[in-house]
Amino acid sequence: MRRRITLKQIAKELDVSISTVSKALRESKEISQDTRDKVQAFAKLYNYKPNNIAVSLKNKHTKNIGVIIPEIVHHFFTTVISGIEKVANSKGYNVIVCLSNESFDKEVINMETLANGSIDGFIMSISKETQKKKDFHHLREVVNQGMPLVMFDRVSDEIYCDKVIVDDARGAYQAVEHLIHTGCKRIALITTVDYVSVGKLRTLGYKNALLDNEMGVDEDLIIKIEDIENCDKEIEKLFDLDNFDGVFAVNELFALTAMKIAQERGYRIPEDISFIGFTDGILSKHASPTLTTLAQHGIEMGEIAADMLIEKIEEEEEDESFRTEIIRTSLIQRDSTRKI
Amino acid sequence: MRRRITLKQIAKELDVSISTVSKALRESKEISQDTRDKVQAFAKLYNYKPNNIAVSLKNKHTKNIGVIIPEIVHHFFTTVISGIEKVANSKGYNVIVCLSNESFDKEVINMETLANGSIDGFIMSISKETQKKKDFHHLREVVNQGMPLVMFDRVSDEIYCDKVIVDDARGAYQAVEHLIHTGCKRIALITTVDYVSVGKLRTLGYKNALLDNEMGVDEDLIIKIEDIENCDKEIEKLFDLDNFDGVFAVNELFALTAMKIAQERGYRIPEDISFIGFTDGILSKHASPTLTTLAQHGIEMGEIAADMLIEKIEEEEEDESFRTEIIRTSLIQRDSTRKI
Repeated sequence: MRRRITLKQIAKELDVSISTVSKALRESKEISQDTRDKVQAFAKLYNYKPNNIAVSLKNKHTKNIGVIIPEIVHHFFTTVISGIEKVANSKGYNVIVCLSNESFDKEVINMETLANGSIDGFIMSISKETQKKKDFHHLREVVNQGMPLVMFDRVSDEIYCDKVIVDDARGAYQAVEHLIHTGCKRIALITTVDYVSVGKLRTLGYKNALLDNEMGVDEDLIIKIEDIENCDKEIEKLFDLDNFDGVFAVNELFALTAMKIAQERGYRIPEDISFIGFTDGILSKHASPTLTTLAQHGIEMGEIAADMLIEKIEEEEEDESFRTEIIRTSLIQRDSTRKI
Repeated sequence: MRRRITLKQIAKELDVSISTVSKALRESKEISQDTRDKVQAFAKLYNYKPNNIAVSLKNKHTKNIGVIIPEIVHHFFTTVISGIEKVANSKGYNVIVCLSNESFDKEVINMETLANGSIDGFIMSISKETQKKKDFHHLREVVNQGMPLVMFDRVSDEIYCDKVIVDDARGAYQAVEHLIHTGCKRIALITTVDYVSVGKLRTLGYKNALLDNEMGVDEDLIIKIEDIENCDKEIEKLFDLDNFDGVFAVNELFALTAMKIAQERGYRIPEDISFIGFTDGILSKHASPTLTTLAQHGIEMGEIAADMLIEKIEEEEEDESFRTEIIRTSLIQRDSTRKI
């Protein structure tokens, strides 16, 4: 039985990274001639053929769309997939989903898996690790070979393709202004580490709203969380300061965790501390009190992404222009903030 | 450009169902000779080739696993995928996910999409519509051609393959006994319609627990919900009866919706009415009060399914025996039930 060797196996065998193998196979100048030769010889020996997307695209339409998302445990990406499914199915396309699990290597492997002739185009949101490494060669390559790509939510300026994003900075600004208008004087921010593009933009919106309202930025009130699953420890530290009356959290898990800690410590919500989140998912609706939040319109985002991709797949002449669609967030007032 | 015609297009063109096309292409005797001839002639005209799994399996290993699930908006299936990913990745396999959206046609199309040589085996949970129609020809076919298949959660006795299920009837029994032991005298059941296998089994466990405790079954206290998204209307009707002090709900969404209605009507939880759910998802943990529930161990289920599938994929000699792994549910006591 002839087994096809995988990128991962080549990397392991030659003791180099998956990224190095991937680049060496494409003759990237970033990789030394010596390593390129070694990788190519090894690949040849084991009959490994890198995908030639351009050839497969010319030969057939598969009517499949590939989607790569960072994770599905949190609600946002599943709503985007619902939107993609809705539009794709109505236009006769199937959707194939792969998860990167926030890993750069898995993202590269996923693209390799899907781009072997199984799909007509990609919709994707990049992993945290890819954002941190700033290594986008795998995306550049599929785009260069003529495979349509639409990025959503977590995107990169370095890739020329269609994109769908929400106005993160404006949404955050709107959230913080809502806290100010409902009487909050000192507002804390619970956000992600800076290399996550959406976290960075939301932090910017938070700071701008404070500055425009002459409130000043207190860096002590900003906590940046790397490990989402264990966010409670970091958030406890914020509560030890005991000097704020409003919290803006960049996702609903952070917001709910903070509300729970506040309740355990005897604060009333929203009388003592008001809370506002980002992403209107299943947790916000079912929280107690229900969470005021910025709706990120995941379903709409998925619908637009699928529309853009299918348009590119089906156009007769190749269109070299790309557009970025910006979805406006909207404020959903519930019980975790005071009424104006 | 040669476009490959899809099952869906053939069905539309000939004005027959996708199932009919799929069966006619495989020479199924269920379909009239006339229709078979027509479908095959049409398929030939447009170069449609049904997959020959047996041939593709012999030629190569793709190191990809296909997963088909009914939906991802609710938490359970996403936890199973996390478990599958964990084991698959550690053994060098990629995971490709397709959604049936609870539709039989989409399930057939998904299998057709994935079984074209992209994957080495399937892990799947069947759609509601497939359970209702009791049409499993697409599953029988991949199994007959030698493609390894593992079914989980929603399975069918008609298919001979490896399976992973939870002990639904026993779990429900345990839930209802817990309500009885903590003082409930009249226990309502919020369940799904009967053709959903897990709903049926949980209903059975509920009834058995009542009968074994000499409490009798009152059919008025059993409500069967078809449209999950609009379950609140049905649940309101139950509360209009106003003659129960315990609720067992077969999923966490039903349980949370019922708790919200109870709170709106001024009942105290658990003093006036106790609640217990099934599936320990993200909602149960963040509900207020937190929800006592039967953990369904989704991650473990995914891990076992992936282990079983990879074992079958990699075995040297074809093993004709199949096993069904039963995962025991466990009770997680939180604040929606009284303490013993």
